[in-house]
Amino acid sequence: MTRRIDLVADLGEGFGPWRMGDDAALLDTLTSANIACGFHAGDPQIMDETVRACVERGVGIGAHPSFPDLQGFGRRDMGLTADEVRTDVLYQFGALQAIAAFHGATVGHIAPHGRLGNLVAVREDYADAVATAAFRVNPELIVLAQDGKLADAARAAGLRVGIVGIADRAYEDDGTLVRRTEPGAVIHDGDEISRRTVRMVVDGVIESRNGVLIPVECDTVLVHGDTAGAVDLARQIREGLETAGVEIAPLADWLE
Amino acid sequence: MTRRIDLVADLGEGFGPWRMGDDAALLDTLTSANIACGFHAGDPQIMDETVRACVERGVGIGAHPSFPDLQGFGRRDMGLTADEVRTDVLYQFGALQAIAAFHGATVGHIAPHGRLGNLVAVREDYADAVATAAFRVNPELIVLAQDGKLADAARAAGLRVGIVGIADRAYEDDGTLVRRTEPGAVIHDGDEISRRTVRMVVDGVIESRNGVLIPVECDTVLVHGDTAGAVDLARQIREGLETAGVEIAPLADWLE
Amino acid sequence: MTRRIDLVADLGEGFGPWRMGDDAALLDTLTSANIACGFHAGDPQIMDETVRACVERGVGIGAHPSFPDLQGFGRRDMGLTADEVRTDVLYQFGALQAIAAFHGATVGHIAPHGRLGNLVAVREDYADAVATAAFRVNPELIVLAQDGKLADAARAAGLRVGIVGIADRAYEDDGTLVRRTEPGAVIHDGDEISRRTVRMVVDGVIESRNGVLIPVECDTVLVHGDTAGAVDLARQIREGLETAGVEIAPLADWLE
Amino acid sequence: MTRRIDLVADLGEGFGPWRMGDDAALLDTLTSANIACGFHAGDPQIMDETVRACVERGVGIGAHPSFPDLQGFGRRDMGLTADEVRTDVLYQFGALQAIAAFHGATVGHIAPHGRLGNLVAVREDYADAVATAAFRVNPELIVLAQDGKLADAARAAGLRVGIVGIADRAYEDDGTLVRRTEPGAVIHDGDEISRRTVRMVVDGVIESRNGVLIPVECDTVLVHGDTAGAVDLARQIREGLETAGVEIAPLADWLE
Repeated sequence: MTRRIDLVADLGEGFGPWRMGDDAALLDTLTSANIACGFHAGDPQIMDETVRACVERGVGIGAHPSFPDLQGFGRRDMGLTADEVRTDVLYQFGALQAIAAFHGATVGHIAPHGRLGNLVAVREDYADAVATAAFRVNPELIVLAQDGKLADAARAAGLRVGIVGIADRAYEDDGTLVRRTEPGAVIHDGDEISRRTVRMVVDGVIESRNGVLIPVECDTVLVHGDTAGAVDLARQIREGLETAGVEIAPLADWLE
Repeated sequence: MTRRIDLVADLGEGFGPWRMGDDAALLDTLTSANIACGFHAGDPQIMDETVRACVERGVGIGAHPSFPDLQGFGRRDMGLTADEVRTDVLYQFGALQAIAAFHGATVGHIAPHGRLGNLVAVREDYADAVATAAFRVNPELIVLAQDGKLADAARAAGLRVGIVGIADRAYEDDGTLVRRTEPGAVIHDGDEISRRTVRMVVDGVIESRNGVLIPVECDTVLVHGDTAGAVDLARQIREGLETAGVEIAPLADWLE
Repeated sequence: MTRRIDLVADLGEGFGPWRMGDDAALLDTLTSANIACGFHAGDPQIMDETVRACVERGVGIGAHPSFPDLQGFGRRDMGLTADEVRTDVLYQFGALQAIAAFHGATVGHIAPHGRLGNLVAVREDYADAVATAAFRVNPELIVLAQDGKLADAARAAGLRVGIVGIADRAYEDDGTLVRRTEPGAVIHDGDEISRRTVRMVVDGVIESRNGVLIPVECDTVLVHGDTAGAVDLARQIREGLETAGVEIAPLADWLE
Repeated sequence: MTRRIDLVADLGEGFGPWRMGDDAALLDTLTSANIACGFHAGDPQIMDETVRACVERGVGIGAHPSFPDLQGFGRRDMGLTADEVRTDVLYQFGALQAIAAFHGATVGHIAPHGRLGNLVAVREDYADAVATAAFRVNPELIVLAQDGKLADAARAAGLRVGIVGIADRAYEDDGTLVRRTEPGAVIHDGDEISRRTVRMVVDGVIESRNGVLIPVECDTVLVHGDTAGAVDLARQIREGLETAGVEIAPLADWLE
């Protein structure tokens, strides 16, 4: 059977007069989009414009909820209760879902942003809040996550989980990411990222910085949109996967 | 056939640490609620709490979208384009709908707030934006409005319209409201408001300040929640209607 | 020499259409006010109105800066850097100072609000940020604080410090406050609060919950404005102090 | 006597993670900066960073207050009362002044932004609100304006007025600007803008689109920072003026 993979990026991360990244160029390379929902970025006009562009290109629409922190871009822990996380996620998901509905589409996945995304991997109460909210609004939703509490909670709730693969970060031998503060933690070379992505997707392994092969699951590959050369890098990753015979297709079409 | 009427008020109009009106007390008298959606008031926690209370009491849930103006409480014209109105309304409706879905409920109606509510009655572009948004997210939605552009646009779109009756304001002979700046524009006496409400609902007429009987339609009566004595007045109105043999029931259950 | 004391409360803690507490009634009892500066509460109109009322009554004007968190009322740790604390405090202080200048007045003190107020007592980096900001905008400013890092940093910077006395909380034998989660942590009886206040101000001691007398400094007594009976309690405290021969006077007039 | 002129641009118009224009590059060409104060753009960190950069380069610091409208970038009329304009301007001016004071500097001028800037030219109540606020916080402040109500009100209040010259717009024979919606309203050619600027500054005239010479006053020339080629254009304007023997100097140093 042909190996299939989804390509996803964070989109619609502008606000008012400001934009971040070249969404239009990136969209041609993606099969799914994590769309900002107004709390760390994104206003109703930008959300509408982003949803419309996704619908036109057949790109899967996902909610990218955040802590309510425009100034901090959702990167700060705000000490919310788990119940506040639940209602904030419902609010943002629903806002995007109505905009999607206007365009005849539906939100197919949910992927917490920034600090919330970090915390749902390790805080069980936050993970449960997100999984419960997601299941109650749509049991068909896919939850995007790395291995961790959110993936566990989503599966326990009966939701499908799309594991996010990361190929532009160095790994320790135990499979954890090398901390960002250490040299070499982030890989910038496009050829190397492309090679690592193919290996991760086709062979299910990634090489640690000591050369150990680590088994990794991966349903979707996260590409970055807000750095210089982001669009070119995304294309290179896509071409690398296609050359290796991988089928690039929206997660919602094939994930079981 | 028994005359039926809905009783509605604006609820959930707090934000963060602040509250407005005694929602809990008022809820026992109502059959429908216009719930603030975060733009003029209402945060996700307050919306969740208000939806939960409505579900427990069988009170119909309605979205109460506004211009994005917390400080001005949605009372200021912000010069939005009609397309901004469309996306703002979608955003707010969806946010509430997801919270309702969490509680196993659905948003049954939509009623624009404040200045937006005033403008949709007279601006065709705004009226169309709201009606189109409403129809696209749920063709079963009821639009609450007084006679005007929004009522027209909603009917044209194929939506049901619930006409809002107002009994605590004085009327000119031509059926328009006496301007707020004129003496006697607002009626404060509970007995009089109750009598006028009954006559409006049962007989379909309201008396102008010159004693002329004006025919008025009315599917729901708007009661105010944020004034002193609001809860008592709401009860008095309800009792007046019940004594007159009117059945008080949620609009969504019976409006055709 | 007559013992002198300042009476201070948090004022102007509304936003847009919302109000908190009965500021007008409370003002007659106070000699100083901590005025919200827009980040946890307070908008420019409310700040202006509050400053004007203080000027009319000769009540000392103080800035009450907070983390930027309207929804959480400044009660949440937002993980700010110390440099963000510095610029947020400058911003809020300056905003209030310009409004005070309009009314021919000046901001005489600064008292961090909520979670920021808790953290400056224990985090040296935050304390330094606030003290440095305060000194650079006005070396004559008084910093209100309980004993802790901020009081230390302010003195080290060459600023005057007004120690805030708290009489409505139970104390442990070591002089720390009994945790709010424990029964009896907050004292609600007006007579007892008044007696404890007099003893704290006149004798410089407060009784622990085990009956141990603890020495306490106190330049200003914080009275609460947002609870039921707040205004009566404030009056009772003031009368108790006056009866005991204490002179109630604005801190800025006498603190050395 | 050598002709002197100020060169000013709008700076610090980012928010949180977003930036607008290349402030650092533009700063080397300017003698004054209109700094966003948090209402249409600018957060305390960005304001601090912008003030610091101005101080390092000897660029004059000006407040650029706006309607409170981050999403609309201050371009929308929000229907504020004149009193709200007064308190909003005080708030923003003061916030910037405290940040300037931290860096040992002072705000030397004030220039309303966007829609507020348009309205103060024609609405006397808004113009008076701004002029009164400015005079009360600092009678030495310079008000930047084009001819109109604000310039009149500022002079009447006893404030100095710096007339802003605009060279990249076409003029009608009567000295008004050609409406933006008409073809040719905005001039994009750098050489032409530079020539027109020199003529405006040196000869005090600008040519209408019909070739009529219109007398224009001009104390400062507004250059734009947020368009492609903005930095190059600013340099070209500066070089053109210098070549013509004009002295480029901060307004606050020489305006009478």
